[in-house]
Amino acid sequence: MHSISDYQDIISDHFSTISIDREPENLYEPIRYILGLGGKRMRPVLTLMAAEIFNADCKQALAAATAVEVFHNFSLIHDDIMDDAPLRRGHETVHEKWDINTGILSGDAMLILAYQYFEQYEPKIFRSLAKLFSKTALEVCEGQQWDVDFESREDVTIPEYLKMIEYKTAVLVGAAMKMGAIVAETSEENADLIYEFGLNLGIAFQLQDDYLDAFGDPMTFGKQVGGDIIENKKTYLYLKAMEFAKASEKEELMHLFSIQPNDNTDKIASVKEIFNTTGASSVTQDAIKEYTFKAFDTLEKMQIDTDKKELLKTFGENLMSRNV
Amino acid sequence: MHSISDYQDIISDHFSTISIDREPENLYEPIRYILGLGGKRMRPVLTLMAAEIFNADCKQALAAATAVEVFHNFSLIHDDIMDDAPLRRGHETVHEKWDINTGILSGDAMLILAYQYFEQYEPKIFRSLAKLFSKTALEVCEGQQWDVDFESREDVTIPEYLKMIEYKTAVLVGAAMKMGAIVAETSEENADLIYEFGLNLGIAFQLQDDYLDAFGDPMTFGKQVGGDIIENKKTYLYLKAMEFAKASEKEELMHLFSIQPNDNTDKIASVKEIFNTTGASSVTQDAIKEYTFKAFDTLEKMQIDTDKKELLKTFGENLMSRNV
Repeated sequence: MHSISDYQDIISDHFSTISIDREPENLYEPIRYILGLGGKRMRPVLTLMAAEIFNADCKQALAAATAVEVFHNFSLIHDDIMDDAPLRRGHETVHEKWDINTGILSGDAMLILAYQYFEQYEPKIFRSLAKLFSKTALEVCEGQQWDVDFESREDVTIPEYLKMIEYKTAVLVGAAMKMGAIVAETSEENADLIYEFGLNLGIAFQLQDDYLDAFGDPMTFGKQVGGDIIENKKTYLYLKAMEFAKASEKEELMHLFSIQPNDNTDKIASVKEIFNTTGASSVTQDAIKEYTFKAFDTLEKMQIDTDKKELLKTFGENLMSRNV
Repeated sequence: MHSISDYQDIISDHFSTISIDREPENLYEPIRYILGLGGKRMRPVLTLMAAEIFNADCKQALAAATAVEVFHNFSLIHDDIMDDAPLRRGHETVHEKWDINTGILSGDAMLILAYQYFEQYEPKIFRSLAKLFSKTALEVCEGQQWDVDFESREDVTIPEYLKMIEYKTAVLVGAAMKMGAIVAETSEENADLIYEFGLNLGIAFQLQDDYLDAFGDPMTFGKQVGGDIIENKKTYLYLKAMEFAKASEKEELMHLFSIQPNDNTDKIASVKEIFNTTGASSVTQDAIKEYTFKAFDTLEKMQIDTDKKELLKTFGENLMSRNV
């Protein structure tokens, strides 16, 4: 088995060789730009890893891994338009550097390009991959729509929030791993189990993201700490705090989530204080553990060598204890 | 063989039965809305027709036909955002009725839904259909980008313009017919020939659209006559007029295509006069015939019954002589 950084290198090398040198320039230049911004490439890494877990050469899964990463970047371009985000990975977003129309059309082309990478597989595998991909891609759109809808709703429940992050984030993690399993032609049961593994780890990962956004170490956390609080985002922390809060805390939190001060230092400190006193922080950490252990449970039933189960477990533990 | 209006009925019936009853409502309501606006359903009709031409039951091709129509409507939603169009088929466009973000995301979902309709076919046919679909969809995006690029260019050539309408419009007509051929499992040669037939007819159709936009009968033409002239669109008529014009006419045409008067009556009349005196109108009509005959040429080589060739020919002749 390769290490995570091996996989990252394989993917980096691969992305530097696949040249999207079609015309018109104004359609493909933004695609090369966003793919060139890099990132952790976590999803395609998981596709390669899953392929090796099920005894295939990880290179066989490169095309599927590429499709996953290209799709993920498509969703970033369109999401950034919808969120009017100026920056992505420390650089201008596509619609900022070009314009909204360019972002729409280049994104569309990337969604189609993603499907084209599956054409390197024979019909049965192609069909399995494309089918899983369509199902997942549609769920990602649905998750994004729930996220948009939640912005203007005050009655979002915890189950609704969990469903939103499952669709918007976790299904693609599950699908990325299942694609590796499909390429490796393992049993359907193994493929479904690795999907569950990825899905639960994906939920844990997103909850961890919510947690670190408020409580991460500014020195190691990649993004601005408190970003969600500044934007009044109804995260798991917020929803749990609202659930547990006494009347006076609830009122204060609702007030804090209605203001947009120029200096957010006090606001962030006060909100974090409420997240702690209500117990929202600690139940969020519990939930991260819960979903990580749920992922580990699927390993019990998987028909693979023990050392590979250990490897997946270590990967999950590292994710759970990450601080970036 | 069924008639065109039979096919339209079959498709209308089918669209009224396929219920896209997923959630969230805000994602799927705009999809149901645009699909409910109807239209001539020309592309899916061609898919059904092609399936029957190659001796399949046209109902077998319904899923592929649905994919084509759903894709076409995806492209309308995103194009309407880019063109900031207020109306589509006499009703509010999706981004007008909802907002741009809704238009982007609902469009994305439709592109994915289109792929899902192919899942009703077995792996080999699925792969052929999805592969042709991806190639075509990417070309449609490229055509749209060329069209956007041409708006700010003064040096667009006739070959460039023809390539743009081929990609933006004609490839989907060719692909719609080839999908019927793929479902019918005819020979690859036949499938390629019907693609060429549709492609050339698609080019003729778009040139006819350019022509009728200026010279159509206001009583029968569905859209506002002179719409392209009002918008200073560089159509085939315009490019040919610029090519043939004497210095003084050229200057006048360029002036007319730089102004945006409140009352366009005089502008439209003057431009049409130049289209006529330069000979641009008559070479446009020649080009429509040329591409229609090019389509007919492919029929010679096709391995199908003579009566079916006649049927395709009649269909092409009706398109060529249409005034709506």
